[in-house]
Amino acid sequence: MELSDIYAPVGDELAAIQDTLKGIRKVKYEWLARQLAHVVRGTGKVIRPALTLLAGKTFPSFEVNREFLRPMAVSVELMHTATLVHDDAIDKAATRRGQPTMNSIWGDEIAILMGDYLFAKAGEYVADTQSPRAIKLFSQTLGIISSGEIAQFRGAYNADQTRDDYYQRIYSKTGSLFSLSTQTGALLAGADEPAIEIMKDYGDNLGIAFQIVDDILDFTSTPEALGKPVGSDLRQGTLTLPAMLLLERHPGDNPVRRYFDTRDDRYTRETVDRVLSSDIIAECYATAAGFRDRACRDLSSLPDTACRHSLEELGEYIVNQGR
Amino acid sequence: MELSDIYAPVGDELAAIQDTLKGIRKVKYEWLARQLAHVVRGTGKVIRPALTLLAGKTFPSFEVNREFLRPMAVSVELMHTATLVHDDAIDKAATRRGQPTMNSIWGDEIAILMGDYLFAKAGEYVADTQSPRAIKLFSQTLGIISSGEIAQFRGAYNADQTRDDYYQRIYSKTGSLFSLSTQTGALLAGADEPAIEIMKDYGDNLGIAFQIVDDILDFTSTPEALGKPVGSDLRQGTLTLPAMLLLERHPGDNPVRRYFDTRDDRYTRETVDRVLSSDIIAECYATAAGFRDRACRDLSSLPDTACRHSLEELGEYIVNQGR
Repeated sequence: MELSDIYAPVGDELAAIQDTLKGIRKVKYEWLARQLAHVVRGTGKVIRPALTLLAGKTFPSFEVNREFLRPMAVSVELMHTATLVHDDAIDKAATRRGQPTMNSIWGDEIAILMGDYLFAKAGEYVADTQSPRAIKLFSQTLGIISSGEIAQFRGAYNADQTRDDYYQRIYSKTGSLFSLSTQTGALLAGADEPAIEIMKDYGDNLGIAFQIVDDILDFTSTPEALGKPVGSDLRQGTLTLPAMLLLERHPGDNPVRRYFDTRDDRYTRETVDRVLSSDIIAECYATAAGFRDRACRDLSSLPDTACRHSLEELGEYIVNQGR
Repeated sequence: MELSDIYAPVGDELAAIQDTLKGIRKVKYEWLARQLAHVVRGTGKVIRPALTLLAGKTFPSFEVNREFLRPMAVSVELMHTATLVHDDAIDKAATRRGQPTMNSIWGDEIAILMGDYLFAKAGEYVADTQSPRAIKLFSQTLGIISSGEIAQFRGAYNADQTRDDYYQRIYSKTGSLFSLSTQTGALLAGADEPAIEIMKDYGDNLGIAFQIVDDILDFTSTPEALGKPVGSDLRQGTLTLPAMLLLERHPGDNPVRRYFDTRDDRYTRETVDRVLSSDIIAECYATAAGFRDRACRDLSSLPDTACRHSLEELGEYIVNQGR
C-alpha cells in the first residue's frame, strides 16, 4: 500500500496543511524567506501532521474542531523541522535528504537561529489551537526531545547501553512527537480520556517502531536513498539496535566497541558487514513489528472509521519500509 | 533608588518566582540538573518577571489572576535565559556575568540543546497562563527575537547602517521581550485594550532605552563589571549607537570602518578612546532618556498605584545606569 492511499481519508486536509507550510516562507525579510523555502518544503512524508489528522478524524466530532486541528498539524511538522535543523548543526551533517543542510551552507550560527525561528512559528500555530492542554503537551514534548538529545550526546561512543536505554532514547527522539501528534489529534477532536490515552499509546509505540526501522535503514539502505553515508549513526557514536544486537552476540570480539575505542572507520564498515551477514536485521524488524502491535492493540475499541483503518495500515507500512 | 525599592510592591511575588526558577533544576537526569543550576540562577536583576508583575499589579483586578501571572513571569525569564544560552554559542562568548558560558564548558552542541530545553520549559509555563493570546504573543516574540538575531548576524561588520536599523534591531533584541512582559502582565490581570496598549508601548520603548544603556556600558564600563571585555559589541561586528555616532561625526576618518575592514583590534581600542573623549556618551544617554519618556508618557492614564509608580521609577533607574 502506498502512503498516499493510507492518507486518502485526510487527503484534502493534508493538502491544505502542506499549503500552509509553504506559506511560512512569506516573510518580509527576503533572505530569511529564501532560507525558509529551502528548509520548510511542505513535501516529504509529512507523517506527523498526517497522524494528527488521522487521529482526529477517527472521531465523529472531528468536523466541529477541524479549524483547531489544522494549526496543530502544522505545528508538529514545524517542530519536527526545527529539531532537524538543530540536530544537523549538532551532528555537523552536510546533507539531509540529499540537500545541503543550513549549517553546511550558512554555518552553525544561522542554523541555531533558524531552528529557534521555526520553534517560534510552531509555537504560534499551536497557540491557534486555543487549547492550553495541547500547548502544554507541545512544550513538554520539546522538553523530552531536547533533554533526550542531551542524554544521547553525552552518551555517545558508549558501548555499555541497555536495550531499555535505547528504547528510552528513541521514545524521546521520535515516539514523543508521534505521540504528541496523535494525542492532540484526539484531544482537539473532542475525544474522551480513554480514547486520548489509546491514541497516546499508539503514537508512543508507533514512533518507536518507526525509529527502529529508521535505524535499520542506516545499515541496509544506500547512500543515495539515505541522502547520507551508510552507518552514519555508528560513526557519530550513536548505538542503535542492530549494533547493539551485534554487541550482545559477540561481546568479546566486537567491531562496535573497537570503533568507539579507536574511531577507526574500518570498524564501522566491519560492523555494517557483520550485521548484514547475520539475521540481526530480521530480528530488528521483528522487534519493530512488536512495537507496531503494541501501538495498534487497542485501536479496535475506537470508532470503526476509515481513518482508524489508516492508522493500522500506517503501522504496517512503517514496519515494512526497506524490506 | 535601588532596584529592590522599585520592586518592593511586588517583592513577595518576585521572591516566589525566583524560587520557582530555582526549582527548574529539579529533574531526574542528574547531569542536566547540575547544568540547569548553573544557568538558571533565579538571581540577577530579573527585570522581565518584575515587569510582568508590576504591569499586572498596576490593575486592581490583579489579585483575581495572580495565579496566571506567576507562570507568565517565570516564562519570560526562562525565554530570556534560553536566548542568552544560544547567543553565547553564536558569539562564541567565553563568559557571561563573569561565569563561564555553557558553550565554553560543554561545547556548542550542548548549548544548542540546553537553549531548546529552556525554550520548552518557558513554553510549559506560558501554557499554564491558560491564555491563548498570551501564548501567541510569547511565540511571536520568540519569532521577532530570532529573526532579529539573524538580521544582526547577517549584517555584522557593516558600517552602513542607519539609526532606524539600529532601533529596529534593539527593539527585536530587547524591546520585544520587555513588551511581552508588560503586555501580558496587563492582559492576564484583565486590563482593557487601551491599557494593554499603553503597557505594550511602555515595554517597547523601555526595552530600547535599556538596550541603548547596555550598549553605552560596553564602552564605559570595566571588564570586571561587564564580565567580558570592553568593546565586545564592536569586536563582534555589532554596530551600536556610540560607534554609530562616531561614524556620523567623522565619516572620512573613522576607526569603526577601519576595524570592520581589517579586524585589527587596535581600531576597536581607538574607537573606544575616541568615543570616551567626546560627548557621544552624553548624547547616547539623552537618546535613551527620550525613549524612557516615550515609554512613560501615557502611564498617568492608568490606575494610580504603587506599581505604576515603580514602572516610572524603573525608567529612571534604567537610564541612569553607569552614570
